[in-house]
Amino acid sequence: MNILYDERLDGALALNDKASVLDRLQTSVPDMKLLHREEDLRPFECDGLSAYRVLPMLVAMPDTLEQIENLMRVCFEMGVPVVTRGAGTGLSGGALPLEQGVLLVMSRFSRILDVDPDARTAKVQPGVRNLAISEAAAPYNLYYAPDPSSQIACSIGGNVAENAGGVHCLKYGLTVHNVLKVNVITIEGERMTLGSDAFDAPGFDLLALFTGSEGMLGVITEVTVKLLPKPEVAKVLMASFDDIEKAGKAVGDIIAAGIIPGGLEMMDNLAIRAAEDFIRAGYPVEAEAILLCELDGVEADVDDDCQTVRDVLRKAGATDIQLARDDAERAKFWAGRKNAFPAVGRMSPDYYCMDGTIPKRALPSVLKGIAALSEEHGLPVANVFHAGDGNMHPLILFDANKPGELELAEKVGGKILELCVEAGGAITGEHGVGREKINQMCVQFKPDELTSFHAVKAAFDSRGLLNPGKNIPTLQRCAEFGAMHVHHGKLPHPDLPRF
Amino acid sequence: MNILYDERLDGALALNDKASVLDRLQTSVPDMKLLHREEDLRPFECDGLSAYRVLPMLVAMPDTLEQIENLMRVCFEMGVPVVTRGAGTGLSGGALPLEQGVLLVMSRFSRILDVDPDARTAKVQPGVRNLAISEAAAPYNLYYAPDPSSQIACSIGGNVAENAGGVHCLKYGLTVHNVLKVNVITIEGERMTLGSDAFDAPGFDLLALFTGSEGMLGVITEVTVKLLPKPEVAKVLMASFDDIEKAGKAVGDIIAAGIIPGGLEMMDNLAIRAAEDFIRAGYPVEAEAILLCELDGVEADVDDDCQTVRDVLRKAGATDIQLARDDAERAKFWAGRKNAFPAVGRMSPDYYCMDGTIPKRALPSVLKGIAALSEEHGLPVANVFHAGDGNMHPLILFDANKPGELELAEKVGGKILELCVEAGGAITGEHGVGREKINQMCVQFKPDELTSFHAVKAAFDSRGLLNPGKNIPTLQRCAEFGAMHVHHGKLPHPDLPRF
Repeated sequence: MNILYDERLDGALALNDKASVLDRLQTSVPDMKLLHREEDLRPFECDGLSAYRVLPMLVAMPDTLEQIENLMRVCFEMGVPVVTRGAGTGLSGGALPLEQGVLLVMSRFSRILDVDPDARTAKVQPGVRNLAISEAAAPYNLYYAPDPSSQIACSIGGNVAENAGGVHCLKYGLTVHNVLKVNVITIEGERMTLGSDAFDAPGFDLLALFTGSEGMLGVITEVTVKLLPKPEVAKVLMASFDDIEKAGKAVGDIIAAGIIPGGLEMMDNLAIRAAEDFIRAGYPVEAEAILLCELDGVEADVDDDCQTVRDVLRKAGATDIQLARDDAERAKFWAGRKNAFPAVGRMSPDYYCMDGTIPKRALPSVLKGIAALSEEHGLPVANVFHAGDGNMHPLILFDANKPGELELAEKVGGKILELCVEAGGAITGEHGVGREKINQMCVQFKPDELTSFHAVKAAFDSRGLLNPGKNIPTLQRCAEFGAMHVHHGKLPHPDLPRF
Repeated sequence: MNILYDERLDGALALNDKASVLDRLQTSVPDMKLLHREEDLRPFECDGLSAYRVLPMLVAMPDTLEQIENLMRVCFEMGVPVVTRGAGTGLSGGALPLEQGVLLVMSRFSRILDVDPDARTAKVQPGVRNLAISEAAAPYNLYYAPDPSSQIACSIGGNVAENAGGVHCLKYGLTVHNVLKVNVITIEGERMTLGSDAFDAPGFDLLALFTGSEGMLGVITEVTVKLLPKPEVAKVLMASFDDIEKAGKAVGDIIAAGIIPGGLEMMDNLAIRAAEDFIRAGYPVEAEAILLCELDGVEADVDDDCQTVRDVLRKAGATDIQLARDDAERAKFWAGRKNAFPAVGRMSPDYYCMDGTIPKRALPSVLKGIAALSEEHGLPVANVFHAGDGNMHPLILFDANKPGELELAEKVGGKILELCVEAGGAITGEHGVGREKINQMCVQFKPDELTSFHAVKAAFDSRGLLNPGKNIPTLQRCAEFGAMHVHHGKLPHPDLPRF
């Protein structure tokens, strides 16, 4: 599928003609690589959410901080919007370009500056790949914990911008819990350091504020992450269930038993069959759901925990429980899960991957709600998710060549996210809001809350030039979307700056 | 000692006369308890930093959210500053009243609303004591991890406002890592919910932003915290050293060996002798330093870790290592540490407790620098601190009755904090900035960084009414203090709002 993005800029930006911006940048930042011909721009027209495509006006590929500073100053002065892009693996369109904007590509900032095994930290440039950090730390028996599925390709700058998660985030936290310090450059071309090498920093917690801010507050130029010692052993249990709600309940039971698994993943029958057909992972194709539970740590602990989890699973109604016999079988169990998205992709011309998060206790009821939506609208939904932290990835199967099916898939997706919000959850777990879920933000937040987001945005980017139209919807957009919570009978703060 | 605070308000606030504010509040919030007579106000003139005292204009003690909303609206409209106070145990003067301001005392919000053992969360009002949460969770074998020394008395609202730490924060994180959701009321009387019951929330991370914001962004009205399962066993090792720098280095060695202790505390000879004299904890009074290392978890693990730590300590040059034989001896070892402040208080008419944080690798050099400052100025300094996370609490001993000694102690304290900043650390670990360390913020941050703090402040509190004069200095104050980093030869943003 391939839709041209309706570039409704959330605000009134100055419209600069391309020639004058190009000319000005070539003069002011002469040594910076700058792409401007259509064939050079084409590879950058989308990120991992390829349903949305926009050709950027220009692509800037700086390799020094001074170039970024100068680029920012020119864009600030001329009123040119800037979208920052890492490896382009994001799934919510956070790095979708703007026709009237510069796409700032950080791929040349790809050096690991320092690995300090005593302090257990690594200082890296933002274009360094997530997995490369763990590889550099491996000689010290250390690793970087957050592991998005795209970790071979995605870069740490994007991980910070999206507050990326992964299979191990239940036990080891999201990106925000694993970052110590970030250097940024503001839209006005000023450098700032957020956080510190010490355990805490005074003043407001701008490090956490920037983490997950989706490129709306500044450009990340350096990241210091925490490293963890590698666990001594890891074992995986696979449990089968004849009822998906029972599997959902078992997730809460495991946590309530005092176990925090290294990973706790769930797949429903459609996902199991797709994965088995593709990977031959040894999954039980008749099961309505499976849970994969990884336990890691020192051996004695892991053995104890395996026993506890087995008992909990049995009580929760598991029809079969298998312990991976060795690392090869463990890898096979995980291969099925890690390839579940492409496996589902083989079953259907198109699929739409959602990313809602709910409190664990709501898993059974939300799963039931998704099944009802699937049936009502006639679109199959496969469920694959980080069950332990309530982060769901329903995959809606459809065929974009059938008229109306894409719109229907988007509608069902929106309704699933609204289910998540109703259950006390959130419209994103680890993929971010980006362009994709901006309308659902109107459901998630009250106008007062959105107003405070805009005020924070304005504190760092008074002209609204950094990644406009993503992450935080304008109140106007919400009103158009029709999901605006009207407050005391009127829209608040009509004089608010609009990005 | 008892100094009247030089009430240099950081900004131009409207000066309201007390009678008109009292009259307006009695009319607009008639059912709210409001203190106004001097004898009623006196108990609120200081918090735990009793060197600073100011009689508030009025003390408001609401017991409903509606009262807080109405109070905020009146204060916003009249331009009356509001300082929020929890249990008043803070050590940096964050709840120091203003002569021209209302002190909002949250002690009547003292109900535990819900303990959910399955979700492992507790929902509480802000006036609930830290320890009361763990007591309420104890029947489920759960507890709330952050444990400031004042945990018997301090309240969770204040813990969030100051991002409080404690002995166990090395392993289990600061308050910000243990809070899921916070409800607040803004200075304009609007309610907001920050965070969610789910693992992550979209939009900017306002929960982390408010945590540690020292009452400058809003009033905390409800807190949902994470609960953890109680560890099966805990053991404590006490190691003696004949050289404080060796002890400092051993701290890094323990962490580098792959151990994250439940607590890792250090005391120097002066602190050891004071504690032993007071508590008879069984400390080696001849040692130059001791380390107390608590290991917790399941028994097999803890035994393994004890052996590893013993080996590390021996290699690091420990002259003696004792394992507490039983829970009674373990409690005795900790009693010495937990009473170190009052113990030092017995040795000297006055002491001034600092709270700097440094990267662990800098411990030996900063300890040496503190010793040099102590000698140079002739004031003894006792060192007691959370060594594992680099959070130091040097106690400067002095006699306020000797002319000039208080000023000298403040000067030495300021220099110690500057040492921490130079070492890559921060001027506060867990006590906050408050009134006490506001000048050192000028050393910690560049004007651009302070400017972004002010912009964030203005996003939530455009009139600068919430806790003015604390936490974030104005650029003008920094210029007067003389520590302003001059930037490109001029003060930035001269048109910035001043609080």
